[in-house]
Amino acid sequence: MTGSAPPQSGDDPLVIAYITAASKADALRIGRSLVEERLAACAKVLDGMTSVYRWEGRVEQADEAVLIAKTRSRLFDRLAARVRELHGYDTPCVLELAVGRGNPAYLDWLRAETA
Amino acid sequence: MTGSAPPQSGDDPLVIAYITAASKADALRIGRSLVEERLAACAKVLDGMTSVYRWEGRVEQADEAVLIAKTRSRLFDRLAARVRELHGYDTPCVLELAVGRGNPAYLDWLRAETA
Amino acid sequence: MTGSAPPQSGDDPLVIAYITAASKADALRIGRSLVEERLAACAKVLDGMTSVYRWEGRVEQADEAVLIAKTRSRLFDRLAARVRELHGYDTPCVLELAVGRGNPAYLDWLRAETA
Repeated sequence: MTGSAPPQSGDDPLVIAYITAASKADALRIGRSLVEERLAACAKVLDGMTSVYRWEGRVEQADEAVLIAKTRSRLFDRLAARVRELHGYDTPCVLELAVGRGNPAYLDWLRAETA
Repeated sequence: MTGSAPPQSGDDPLVIAYITAASKADALRIGRSLVEERLAACAKVLDGMTSVYRWEGRVEQADEAVLIAKTRSRLFDRLAARVRELHGYDTPCVLELAVGRGNPAYLDWLRAETA
Repeated sequence: MTGSAPPQSGDDPLVIAYITAASKADALRIGRSLVEERLAACAKVLDGMTSVYRWEGRVEQADEAVLIAKTRSRLFDRLAARVRELHGYDTPCVLELAVGRGNPAYLDWLRAETA
């Protein structure tokens, strides 16, 4: 896991799940469940986001929070399904971002903490 | 769109456009235009960012805001060109991050809301 | 660097290094060093993040800050090694996210400001 070869090129890549929620409390509730169930190694919540989107033909604005969950690629579909169960929205934003290289010890920790 | 095959592997991938602006108001103004013009399905603004960069040989610090716009890959070049028109900076930060999988209903919504 | 061909497909791709730190002050200190040493063209700090993670079998919660550093892919391993030296954590989170296209003039600036 050391040296310049990407540690992610193998058979167990890691991903970031980018999720939005209606409030910091809601994001923390979802993130805590994902960590408790080992669907994510950690969950980070950023508060104070303003969202702009079209709804029924009008451009609306609302306060939201971001939840960044780190997990294995192979767990992403289960994580996304669980977020849909836990979330207050009908169509929550859950998007996968591929992780490339990383601090090798941290990548090991992410894998150890996920199911 | 269900199952474990990445729904993004086809011919209409989605991306995140990561943009920075001088203030929350500026980021909201740009994001609202992108949504109104259907160059992005939604725009999220995170305030309270501190930026560290080199300018004329010195390391400077400034307050900024982040704008996260979600769109189709095929619209990214038009979005970036429009941000250059709307932005107060000569050389604004506009970067593309590839989206992998996602909540299928949310991916459908992103596509339906973009030109 | 203009037109629709991805400017990133060549031999000098750019990346985002996603790093977390215990406080805004800590994130700024690390980010400033990375920029001063030309291991990153810029560093952005977002404060007010709440982190949820498992520690010794319990799910814990702590305040953190995010540091987003932009650099060349070829500098990522050196950047990650330097963050491990500068960081107060034994196992800091340093993750690579690939950048696709971008505002061509901004991509040029990122390359000009890195070693």
